[in-house]
Amino acid sequence: MNLLSIRDIQQGLAGGEFSACELAHLTLAQIEQVDPEINAFTHVTSLRLLQEAQAIDRIRSCGETLPPLAGVPFAVKNLFDIKGVTTLAGAELFSTQPPALEDAFAIKQLSAAGAMLTGALNMDAYAYGFTTENSHYGATRNPHDLARIAGGSSGGSAAAVAAGMVNFSLGTDTNGSIRVPASLCGVFGLKPTFGRLSRSGSQPFVASLDHIGPLARNVDDLARVYDALQGMDATDHFQSARHVEPVADKLEKPASLRSAVLGGFFETWCDDEAKAAVASVAKILGTDECITLPEAELARSAAFLLSAAEGGNHYLPALRERAERFELNSRERLLAGAMTPSAWYTQAQRFRTWFRDNTLPLFEKYDLLIAPATPCSATLIGQQIMQINGTELPVKASMGMLTQPISFLGLPVVTVPLMTASGHPIGVQLIAPPWREDICLRAAHQLEIQGMLVGKTTR
Amino acid sequence: MNLLSIRDIQQGLAGGEFSACELAHLTLAQIEQVDPEINAFTHVTSLRLLQEAQAIDRIRSCGETLPPLAGVPFAVKNLFDIKGVTTLAGAELFSTQPPALEDAFAIKQLSAAGAMLTGALNMDAYAYGFTTENSHYGATRNPHDLARIAGGSSGGSAAAVAAGMVNFSLGTDTNGSIRVPASLCGVFGLKPTFGRLSRSGSQPFVASLDHIGPLARNVDDLARVYDALQGMDATDHFQSARHVEPVADKLEKPASLRSAVLGGFFETWCDDEAKAAVASVAKILGTDECITLPEAELARSAAFLLSAAEGGNHYLPALRERAERFELNSRERLLAGAMTPSAWYTQAQRFRTWFRDNTLPLFEKYDLLIAPATPCSATLIGQQIMQINGTELPVKASMGMLTQPISFLGLPVVTVPLMTASGHPIGVQLIAPPWREDICLRAAHQLEIQGMLVGKTTR
Repeated sequence: MNLLSIRDIQQGLAGGEFSACELAHLTLAQIEQVDPEINAFTHVTSLRLLQEAQAIDRIRSCGETLPPLAGVPFAVKNLFDIKGVTTLAGAELFSTQPPALEDAFAIKQLSAAGAMLTGALNMDAYAYGFTTENSHYGATRNPHDLARIAGGSSGGSAAAVAAGMVNFSLGTDTNGSIRVPASLCGVFGLKPTFGRLSRSGSQPFVASLDHIGPLARNVDDLARVYDALQGMDATDHFQSARHVEPVADKLEKPASLRSAVLGGFFETWCDDEAKAAVASVAKILGTDECITLPEAELARSAAFLLSAAEGGNHYLPALRERAERFELNSRERLLAGAMTPSAWYTQAQRFRTWFRDNTLPLFEKYDLLIAPATPCSATLIGQQIMQINGTELPVKASMGMLTQPISFLGLPVVTVPLMTASGHPIGVQLIAPPWREDICLRAAHQLEIQGMLVGKTTR
Repeated sequence: MNLLSIRDIQQGLAGGEFSACELAHLTLAQIEQVDPEINAFTHVTSLRLLQEAQAIDRIRSCGETLPPLAGVPFAVKNLFDIKGVTTLAGAELFSTQPPALEDAFAIKQLSAAGAMLTGALNMDAYAYGFTTENSHYGATRNPHDLARIAGGSSGGSAAAVAAGMVNFSLGTDTNGSIRVPASLCGVFGLKPTFGRLSRSGSQPFVASLDHIGPLARNVDDLARVYDALQGMDATDHFQSARHVEPVADKLEKPASLRSAVLGGFFETWCDDEAKAAVASVAKILGTDECITLPEAELARSAAFLLSAAEGGNHYLPALRERAERFELNSRERLLAGAMTPSAWYTQAQRFRTWFRDNTLPLFEKYDLLIAPATPCSATLIGQQIMQINGTELPVKASMGMLTQPISFLGLPVVTVPLMTASGHPIGVQLIAPPWREDICLRAAHQLEIQGMLVGKTTR
């Protein structure tokens, strides 16, 4: 049912094939049936969903024009404020907080566009992780293989979309938290340019790296949701977009993109299946060029440092008073982060400038860079170590190693899903210059119409 | 001789009253006569001065139009790169470095405008101090009273101008390093909006707080030099000015400014002479309103934290290898700064956003804020403690306590010089909204034409 596209829903509602209330009831039924084994939702906003559906149907019955996302069920990572719901950010720590007084800016944008909120989704505590193995709220399971992780930290957001429970979802991405679960669950994810979308009303983790963005099962849906999310928010200091730049209507625009594959670090730290996925994408995009980002490994380290330090600063008051309530996986790294010498922190920010200066000129020659989204497809829930490049790597820290250097640059990225020979999804990052979300969305669309991508499960 | 204004020089050169070479020779003679007791210069660029003078005279002899600062002698704090001269930044540490390969961006701007470089000026080591009691290069003496400090860290810049050795100078201001010496030496200083002027080719101290700016003996000179300094530099990441906005020709524009005196912290931590200076300025500007910046004391602490942390980060490699060559006053605070927990550093940056959000709206009601530049007039060289508000304060750290909260906000400030009843100069800060240098320059001009300000010594 929720494998319908947004366009299908628009047409179905307009043609009277179904009502928004029917969509809402089917969505709730689907969640009731599927979520017990997936564990994507931490809260289902049934009443609100039904009320929003009724509102859409009232508009229909008046014969008025429906807004662009009318009747489209979605859900959000549980770090977005939902009016009347406690914002968990994956943390037991926040479970006793009062409910949010209003919706996050992004939810307001989507509600204004007619989308119907279905609930809040599981995540790594504090958004600090790549596996959504949440010790308090349980692991989210990968819809393609329930024994495997969904990826994180927006694991619930990717799984809910992949399992067909909602049409799209909101996630956040600090070091890869949209791109990693999109890769492992086989859906599309967009991490926009840093500063493009307002983060107001979302629980922060790393102010200088946090992004919000959508996940969906096809590129057209992803672009329509992204268009609805755009909007200026004077209260968000990090929003630096100057204009709303709609993309959905430009997807068909023929693109003659100069693209290149990222080698070096990005080629070293992935398995053969990830390499094969990148090669397929490169082939369709017609490139055999391969370039290297200088010091990509340092960029990853610097992103780790900023995350630990800013995350540590953010949680320090709570760590001082209620350390026992912290997620065990994160308590000590947040404390260590807070105590990191400031000289390291400022050095990481200083290196960030250097890294930008030395990588952005690549876009004079290329419109699009291609890299794997994850070193491999989904590992097993509970698995601690994975073998990549003959080296044992810790899963929790390493699943995002190929996304970290890119978000450190603040570049827009669409992750497109492919299927490996062994039958698991894996994502490829399409990376564009700052503010050129249109380029990576158009490239993703080009790949999609070649029929090489997956965006739906068969569950 | 160098008590001539820039306009005097323009007219004198145009009318053939004197040549640029005569000005250059007189400048060198003045330095030779006066500087031994002031100790403002660490290097005199005699040859360059004479060559630049000859170039100006060649233009004159061809009858061509002279550039706006033609023939005006100036000097720069010794943290600006001068081609062929070792950039000291007040530090013995750098004395064995090779000479700079090119001029700083600001010097290039001034040279292009025809100004004649005379030399490099003394400062607190690393720009970390408010007294210019440099343990390696000696203290700079206050031209108004040789037993007293010139203030710092741009002490040589203020003293060279006050003593009539040059017409203007360049300084830098991180926490007050232009405004404090301008106050204590009785000259005008402009700290522009953070991001207005390029810092390329100047030795950095605190990337997120450093500003460059001019010092001069009258407002018209200050504005003309500021206009020449403006210009876009794509290589300076912190320059965020969008346009060059010349001010000098607008000084006469009648200003009906809504102004207010800063009370609270700024009233508490100054002596009666500073209060009297502020009251005189407020009277002429026609205001009896007094407002309070919330948490100004915290802003000062946060500025200290950023300075120690970023300064510490910057000097850490040298501290690791050559700690014995560091200025004693600064070695331990730089080390401590580098080891500050990053949680404190990020908290200070976070507070900065809060402080801006809670103070900038004041400019909806006021065009100009008025505050003392220093708690008192110049203390004695070697004096460790001063009494302010019945409290013993360390001179070295406290002379900038009233400037720190303002530069933390990045606001443009002109310091105007008054004379106290006891016969020492003291400065008052005229503070304008971001990017409105024109407002504080026009207000300074208004005060100047009332004849209440001093800008020249009688030495």
